[in-house]
Amino acid sequence: MPKSTHHESKAKLLNAALSVIRAKGYAATTVDDICHMAGVTKGSFFHHFKSKDDLALSAAAFWGEMTEGFFASAPYHDSIDPLERLLGYIDFRADILRGDLPDYTCLLGTLVQETYATHPDIRAACDKGMSTHIAILTRDIEAAKQLYAPDATWSAESIGYLIQSVLQGAFIFAKAKQGPDVVRESLAHLRRYLQLIFAQSPTTKREEQQT
Amino acid sequence: MPKSTHHESKAKLLNAALSVIRAKGYAATTVDDICHMAGVTKGSFFHHFKSKDDLALSAAAFWGEMTEGFFASAPYHDSIDPLERLLGYIDFRADILRGDLPDYTCLLGTLVQETYATHPDIRAACDKGMSTHIAILTRDIEAAKQLYAPDATWSAESIGYLIQSVLQGAFIFAKAKQGPDVVRESLAHLRRYLQLIFAQSPTTKREEQQT
Repeated sequence: MPKSTHHESKAKLLNAALSVIRAKGYAATTVDDICHMAGVTKGSFFHHFKSKDDLALSAAAFWGEMTEGFFASAPYHDSIDPLERLLGYIDFRADILRGDLPDYTCLLGTLVQETYATHPDIRAACDKGMSTHIAILTRDIEAAKQLYAPDATWSAESIGYLIQSVLQGAFIFAKAKQGPDVVRESLAHLRRYLQLIFAQSPTTKREEQQT
Repeated sequence: MPKSTHHESKAKLLNAALSVIRAKGYAATTVDDICHMAGVTKGSFFHHFKSKDDLALSAAAFWGEMTEGFFASAPYHDSIDPLERLLGYIDFRADILRGDLPDYTCLLGTLVQETYATHPDIRAACDKGMSTHIAILTRDIEAAKQLYAPDATWSAESIGYLIQSVLQGAFIFAKAKQGPDVVRESLAHLRRYLQLIFAQSPTTKREEQQT
């Protein structure tokens, strides 16, 4: 097999895994489903991956690289104000709610929901992917906290987890309701919360009293 | 089969379904798993249910009845103030984060995540159960809105969906992290948000200006 085709079939299998698992869940997905969607043979599958679980680990890592690249190049990073970058992230998450449910819902949230008790390696890979995304986001939250709410008792990281909890939970409602309305409305509430807690710090109040 | 035993074996199967599906997901759960956990025969299973999908529909309905009964008898309903009842609900959700992950995570959130595209009946049953819970909660949110934030542009129902999105999404992190810390911290943020939006309505501001 020439090297480029070899690489191509692996990428096709990983992309197919992202689509099929997000559509029908992990346990219901078969190696045949993935080969069929990728348009590659089962022989090629087992050339690249030892098993479906092995593919899931690669798919979780591939998802992490792909989404971090996608978010890294998004326009909300352009602002010099960390709170604007954070609110820009929330707006960006609302903007990308397009296409079908498997296009905008999260591979890792789906994967971990089914596998946490039975597949420790997959659970750990999902945790790693989600935690990495939150760690990057937390940098802006921490910078915004320093500027706008330095005395707040909550941690920047806990806001990162709140944001992702809202997204993951609202995706469940998107699936239940067959559309992203709950995601949009929940992100609007989340945006309002961030504006309130960053505008209402003891420091802001002290500054107001001094003027 | 005597009537009481007949009823008993059905209840055992439904309770087993709640545990097994919440632990390993729906697709990975087999009829054998459920019979084994329930301690009943496969013959008994197929006496009560046509198929695993048929059991899932009954389990979703059973879950709805059971959890609504559980929440209806919870102490947060005692307050005469609807905002106190609402905050009491949030505190109650934090209080009941006990036991193992399948003890406090949601059957419907797990079920719908896997089945939304492939099992329309199960998706609809999950939507119905989650929407019913939100409709009951929305009564208190609407009453609190009338009292404390009558001019707010958000709907009481959207707050109900936000609360459940935070819970469902934080349960995903509980599974990823093997414990309820993210659920507790996210509920604390949610409580703070509710206090802010119900304390900061245009009406409250107007009243302040008049004094």
